[in-house]
Amino acid sequence: MQARSGDIEDNAALPVMAPVMVLVRPQMGENIGASARAMLNFGLDRMRLVAPRDGWPNPRAVAMASGASPVLERAGVFDDLPAAVADCDWVLATTARGRGLSKPVLTPERAMEQARALGAAGKRVAVLFGPERAGLENDDVARANAIVTVPVNPAFYSLNLAQCVLLLAYEWERQGAEVPPEVEELAGTDLAGHVEVTRLGDHAEERLAAAGFFFPEAKAAGMKRNLRNMWARLRLTRADVQMLHGMLRKLGRGAGE
Amino acid sequence: MQARSGDIEDNAALPVMAPVMVLVRPQMGENIGASARAMLNFGLDRMRLVAPRDGWPNPRAVAMASGASPVLERAGVFDDLPAAVADCDWVLATTARGRGLSKPVLTPERAMEQARALGAAGKRVAVLFGPERAGLENDDVARANAIVTVPVNPAFYSLNLAQCVLLLAYEWERQGAEVPPEVEELAGTDLAGHVEVTRLGDHAEERLAAAGFFFPEAKAAGMKRNLRNMWARLRLTRADVQMLHGMLRKLGRGAGE
Repeated sequence: MQARSGDIEDNAALPVMAPVMVLVRPQMGENIGASARAMLNFGLDRMRLVAPRDGWPNPRAVAMASGASPVLERAGVFDDLPAAVADCDWVLATTARGRGLSKPVLTPERAMEQARALGAAGKRVAVLFGPERAGLENDDVARANAIVTVPVNPAFYSLNLAQCVLLLAYEWERQGAEVPPEVEELAGTDLAGHVEVTRLGDHAEERLAAAGFFFPEAKAAGMKRNLRNMWARLRLTRADVQMLHGMLRKLGRGAGE
Repeated sequence: MQARSGDIEDNAALPVMAPVMVLVRPQMGENIGASARAMLNFGLDRMRLVAPRDGWPNPRAVAMASGASPVLERAGVFDDLPAAVADCDWVLATTARGRGLSKPVLTPERAMEQARALGAAGKRVAVLFGPERAGLENDDVARANAIVTVPVNPAFYSLNLAQCVLLLAYEWERQGAEVPPEVEELAGTDLAGHVEVTRLGDHAEERLAAAGFFFPEAKAAGMKRNLRNMWARLRLTRADVQMLHGMLRKLGRGAGE
């Protein structure tokens, strides 16, 4: 990928970190290959795959990718979504519809504006794309910091996986053509990484389980998902995460230890 | 060719006139159908065809178009490009590369900005797309007022016909979003009010104080301020606040009660 020195303000030596495109449980190899092409059209070359249905490597993906096959060769393959985004600082979930998950819903434009600002600050952004047929599950979306929805005609929606990847990649490129607009204070914030937030969620869940919070049993899974969703959405800083761990330790002592 | 009385009105109440997408000598019916779908995703439904290779109508186009087949049914079919754009006020030619034709070369963004402005003034804009294999010929491009080039990776270009249509249609839609979307549009979120967040802060402080969290004494004031600051910053929903109260009650029981 070419250098983007024009975008960099704080540190002239650092390139903007480009987003990682994460295909979650993709079904058809052809669509994986087409997504690689869509990405490379706009200079994105970092793909990750979560549990591709037909295994990996996939000759159909390679055949379809054609000149973009280096993207596939470099792709990371993971068993589950948490592992795939473990090193990411900001996770965006593409979905066709709102999910009632109380999470910011962004246009591709705003999402890539954020991604530019975060990338310029050296943060790693992941964009999640669901399986062809059904899209991301609520449990996947719950792990994301925000939702991206392409503003399609409400009467007609027919974007396929690679087209969705294409539009996000195009927006990434388009945003880079000019000086990226400031996106709130996000770039300067020392946001907690995905792993830190996940660990906080684990810790909270553990303490709460010991305290009997997840009751009744039938509601436990939903309560845990709500809780995960909340942690992911809050844009916690590293300092927040430390403080919350401290709180959990102090408060949970009576109940859990 | 069908009558176009619906398009031609000088009425001030008219909506912005949407561009006509003109496929010039398209080869595969499937690509015509896929282009119709790409258009309709973003509300564009006026297609014209110039000398489609396999004649017209084309069952493969209809099969691929699926729910977008009304776009094909309404498509005008012309023998040559001059006839297809005879009633147009502004013609844009999509090409992958400059042609040395001394013509303005626009990004999709600028091109659709122009199209919006012209359409608002009741002008008819045509966007030309060339045949799959070779793209528009220089004679076609010579008839256009300006060139549109998608800013792809110079080292890798693999946009197909329908993808190119998709990107232009997307830009049309994006430019038309009346008010630029809010950066943080919390879809359907019931944010907690200030008083609710304050009460949560009080509750947390009380439980934490009972658990000996604010230690040492000299740092207590700063710790409390950080905590208040965090609650205020997190954009908590009503549901979050309830959940956090519940957590504090459960966890704090051992220490505080």
